[in-house]
Amino acid sequence: MRKLFQEDLHHLGGQLTDMAVLVAEAMEKGYRSFETADVQLAEQVIVADQRIDAMQAELDEKAIELLALQGPVASDLRLIVGALRMSTSLERMGDLARHIAQLARLRYPDTVAPAQLMPVYQQMAQKDIALARKIVELLETREVALISELDAYNEQVNDLHAGVFTTIARSDWDSSAATTADVTLASRYFERFADHGVSVAKKVQYLVTGEWEAETSAS
Amino acid sequence: MRKLFQEDLHHLGGQLTDMAVLVAEAMEKGYRSFETADVQLAEQVIVADQRIDAMQAELDEKAIELLALQGPVASDLRLIVGALRMSTSLERMGDLARHIAQLARLRYPDTVAPAQLMPVYQQMAQKDIALARKIVELLETREVALISELDAYNEQVNDLHAGVFTTIARSDWDSSAATTADVTLASRYFERFADHGVSVAKKVQYLVTGEWEAETSAS
Repeated sequence: MRKLFQEDLHHLGGQLTDMAVLVAEAMEKGYRSFETADVQLAEQVIVADQRIDAMQAELDEKAIELLALQGPVASDLRLIVGALRMSTSLERMGDLARHIAQLARLRYPDTVAPAQLMPVYQQMAQKDIALARKIVELLETREVALISELDAYNEQVNDLHAGVFTTIARSDWDSSAATTADVTLASRYFERFADHGVSVAKKVQYLVTGEWEAETSAS
Repeated sequence: MRKLFQEDLHHLGGQLTDMAVLVAEAMEKGYRSFETADVQLAEQVIVADQRIDAMQAELDEKAIELLALQGPVASDLRLIVGALRMSTSLERMGDLARHIAQLARLRYPDTVAPAQLMPVYQQMAQKDIALARKIVELLETREVALISELDAYNEQVNDLHAGVFTTIARSDWDSSAATTADVTLASRYFERFADHGVSVAKKVQYLVTGEWEAETSAS
């Protein structure tokens, strides 16, 4: 019985990792569709998000079943509650990647962002994708040293996000108001994605060390 | 022992209601600071959000303690897991009210939005505040019939949110790009607030009926 329970917990961890893999892929493809105005790819990302949502539902159901049947305590309990919370953050990251794809689809055949902003989005997306892959690694290895790398990506994304507003406010910004609204939202989506990634990392840290560093509510 | 546990559960419900009361108040004041460029009021909202964050932390700690000590099953378990999730949504609603106040502070002594958009924000805020108050009522009464009213508010907020983009895209929109970015974000904050409110309502519905209506991932 005990052994089966440990297998169940292990399986729960595997489900989280699988979600994180799909989330990284969603942002990779979501950004590519945004960069290249690839409406077919955007559609793929939008449809694939349903899979991430379904995985969250499955994981949550399993976690609640384990709570009910096993009445876990101490680190097992912490693991299960942590899994419930991480799945929520990962599901939101999937939504945000989908939002990027939805913007791409909305503006097709044009690109969402004008050429002058593209390098900024490219960097934001690279950090977001790297961060999502780092989460996969973190979930697999529980190597809390990785968390500082994740934090660094998040800070870089925050700086890039601020840079978008600086660009918009410059006198040579001549895009339409509709484009200004689009690029504002896109930037916000990339920024929130990294933020949720940090939430996942903090939960892993809590599981491993038992220490809960309060999340800064800066965003 | 059993009686004490029921009291603990009741107390958990009370903590959620208290959070919802503060969230409604945060949006009320946050919007007022946004409408009138009242930087002192904005500061109040920003500082008060720490109280909401602290309440979430307390509630979560209590919920995990109950899971550990009582090994609850069936409806008691559902209640505790539901409380964990609702506190997450309420905390985010507090953040979003704070974001509105932060925009007000950022643009002080100007207002964030130009006069032509103010009526739209006023309506969005009214719906958001009404929705937050409805959540308080829902948490107190468990009257699931209230949920359709909450959904209606959310739909109205979604329509108003779409209306902001229509206004921005019109040829007579002559505000600066920085203002366009601000009003886009503000509109998004009001829209997300209502969305999280619906999440809370769905969780109450699940607690009362055991039926889980999958959340639409539209936003």
